[in-house]
Amino acid sequence: MSYCLATYRCFGEQTDFHKKAQGIAVGLTVGSWTDLPEAKKANMQKHLGQVVSVEIQEASASSPRYADIQIAYPDVNFSLDIPALLVTVFGKLSMDGQIKLIDLHFSERFLSAFSGPKYGIAGIRSQLGVHDRPLLMSIFKSVIGHDMQELASQFKQQALGGVDLIKDDEILFENPLTPIEKRVAACMQAAAEAEAETGQKLLYAVNLTGPTFQLKEQAKKAIDHGANALLFNVLAYGFDTLQALASDPEITIPVAAHPAMAGAMYPSPNYGIGASVLLGKLMRLAGADLVLFPSPYGSVVMPKEENLAIQQVLLTEELAKHYGYQTPQLSANKLKRSLPVPSAGIHPGLTPLILRDFGQDVVVNAGGGIHGHPMGTAAGGRAFRQAIDAVQQGHGLKEYAAQHPELQAAIDAWGLREN
Amino acid sequence: MSYCLATYRCFGEQTDFHKKAQGIAVGLTVGSWTDLPEAKKANMQKHLGQVVSVEIQEASASSPRYADIQIAYPDVNFSLDIPALLVTVFGKLSMDGQIKLIDLHFSERFLSAFSGPKYGIAGIRSQLGVHDRPLLMSIFKSVIGHDMQELASQFKQQALGGVDLIKDDEILFENPLTPIEKRVAACMQAAAEAEAETGQKLLYAVNLTGPTFQLKEQAKKAIDHGANALLFNVLAYGFDTLQALASDPEITIPVAAHPAMAGAMYPSPNYGIGASVLLGKLMRLAGADLVLFPSPYGSVVMPKEENLAIQQVLLTEELAKHYGYQTPQLSANKLKRSLPVPSAGIHPGLTPLILRDFGQDVVVNAGGGIHGHPMGTAAGGRAFRQAIDAVQQGHGLKEYAAQHPELQAAIDAWGLREN
Repeated sequence: MSYCLATYRCFGEQTDFHKKAQGIAVGLTVGSWTDLPEAKKANMQKHLGQVVSVEIQEASASSPRYADIQIAYPDVNFSLDIPALLVTVFGKLSMDGQIKLIDLHFSERFLSAFSGPKYGIAGIRSQLGVHDRPLLMSIFKSVIGHDMQELASQFKQQALGGVDLIKDDEILFENPLTPIEKRVAACMQAAAEAEAETGQKLLYAVNLTGPTFQLKEQAKKAIDHGANALLFNVLAYGFDTLQALASDPEITIPVAAHPAMAGAMYPSPNYGIGASVLLGKLMRLAGADLVLFPSPYGSVVMPKEENLAIQQVLLTEELAKHYGYQTPQLSANKLKRSLPVPSAGIHPGLTPLILRDFGQDVVVNAGGGIHGHPMGTAAGGRAFRQAIDAVQQGHGLKEYAAQHPELQAAIDAWGLREN
Repeated sequence: MSYCLATYRCFGEQTDFHKKAQGIAVGLTVGSWTDLPEAKKANMQKHLGQVVSVEIQEASASSPRYADIQIAYPDVNFSLDIPALLVTVFGKLSMDGQIKLIDLHFSERFLSAFSGPKYGIAGIRSQLGVHDRPLLMSIFKSVIGHDMQELASQFKQQALGGVDLIKDDEILFENPLTPIEKRVAACMQAAAEAEAETGQKLLYAVNLTGPTFQLKEQAKKAIDHGANALLFNVLAYGFDTLQALASDPEITIPVAAHPAMAGAMYPSPNYGIGASVLLGKLMRLAGADLVLFPSPYGSVVMPKEENLAIQQVLLTEELAKHYGYQTPQLSANKLKRSLPVPSAGIHPGLTPLILRDFGQDVVVNAGGGIHGHPMGTAAGGRAFRQAIDAVQQGHGLKEYAAQHPELQAAIDAWGLREN
């Protein structure tokens, strides 16, 4: 027997949390237990959920009474896919009062069904030929209503600034002005022109959109026209669709997961699914090579501890966990690591904080902080590269900016935070 | 030009809600406006979002300060699918502080891309030959770990009680004991046997599970083995997948939408997506013939006003709304109506409330309230049918129960609420 573990935070002033935990463990697995005949119990034992722990926090000035409850679900009860796991552990239960799914651990058997990111951090670094510094991503500014020439020109200005990745805006869908095959062709041409000047390789994450059952063909069409990365609004389609794309041997380019719609689920303390599960473990499990999420620094904010919890599960954590009566026969499946991309409201003056908190395996990602640079878009990219160089070389940004006008202009425009 | 409308509830003690509304209308469409050259503005006008209304509620004893903001999004900005609409109106914005998407209205053009429920209420009534009363659905009790013979026997007991529909448990996935093709064959055989005794037709909603890109084949396999309805965990897969199933001409049976995972999104007042959008409009738009949701009466509770808002959009509301400069060329697409199925904790003594609140176009749905009947499962179904008959004939349940022992036993076991 092996188990996937779900941890919930449940709120209730009077709730008997031990009883609630037993109710979950039985109700979401075998349905009933105490009234089963003894002979039947022997057969059903392997399907019965187990209460792993119940940790009660009494009410305090800052929080109402709650309990963190961990339940072990036999993985023999569900098929080895994310919809089945989520419907089991947080299907009906999500509607049962104030309860939030705050963690998941997968059994080795469950994990064995997943191939995870196809490229991961090492693969992306290898494609870019960049191994010794944080990466820099730029986001298109205005895109809707712009024609191909305008997008290609905007692309080239971004590329000339020395960025490693450029991503589509997540709200750019199939449209007559800039359909995916033309967009890819024109932008990759602009990338080649910029590379001739800068010597720098670049990944362009083109937005994969449209009907679910046409996504694979759409991705392959993009690849046929030269695409070297995809952007995907995972939560609008479901994790299983990401998994299908990421594990398709014909989809031979990395996938960047956009967090669109995630705010419908992670921010409430009392309901939903925790950010490190939603934008962390499940994204890596489903195969995102890069994962965007709101940074703790900028305009759309997520608390820093949640950011670091996402980072941990994308980068370092062993996603499998032993729980059960038998030693698992399978050795743990080692999923590749996904690159964290803390996003929104980032400008060069925040680079010291990002690198302090995330280290080198991070993508510094900016839109307005590049396009809004007083000296123009290309200078915006260069200001970020200068900021990254300064931090990596141990210089203060102010000092370094004295010799680097793009960085100086960025600091003058947006300020500087070094701690 | 035509527009889809999104209504948000935004919270903030000091927020300038008019400014926030403008920021949404511009930021989620053309990106920037005031700094565009005048010549460019003429081209971009058709892509620019519009603030329709901003209604501010100052703080009161029962609620913090908030505003309901309605924004019109030009439907030319996105492709005519649910992921594109949701990513546009609540992608990035979902992560922008305390904000909840509380309503959506579709343009005629957007709606024209959707066929909605394939059967709807009239189609389901016609399949069952029941036109003059609320329908009755029964849910399997324990299913995990049970073999085919046990499920078939449980099915027949339910069918003998005179229920119109039987649904799988949503946590029953593909498994070696009861794979979908065997389950369908055995349960439809049990349905035929019961029909020979009762003369009553029955729909069995078998749970459609597994990898997204195999769902169509899985559904067709079920149909080949005699399935006459499907249960589907829509939110684990995304609305677009439901739409693909419901609009597939080879999937010739109705689909019942299960609300599993919906509680991760609708219950918080400050975040997420309102129940009437999530379990109402989007389910109908995507093509659910029946929609399950937590009732206001039972064990897993949703407030009654939210239940009635779901009912309204499933049954009566015209989903298209005019907003724009031109009279739309398209006549509004009339989607079929979806059957509301308020669920969880229902026993026969609640029937008067359900019928008072929902009228005749409702499915009375019970699990424990049928299987737990003191005289057995078949008697449990009969007790519900008696309760429905009593209400329809204008009898009080107590009075009617005096001549109907199954109903009497149910009232003795679970009580009675007539208002």
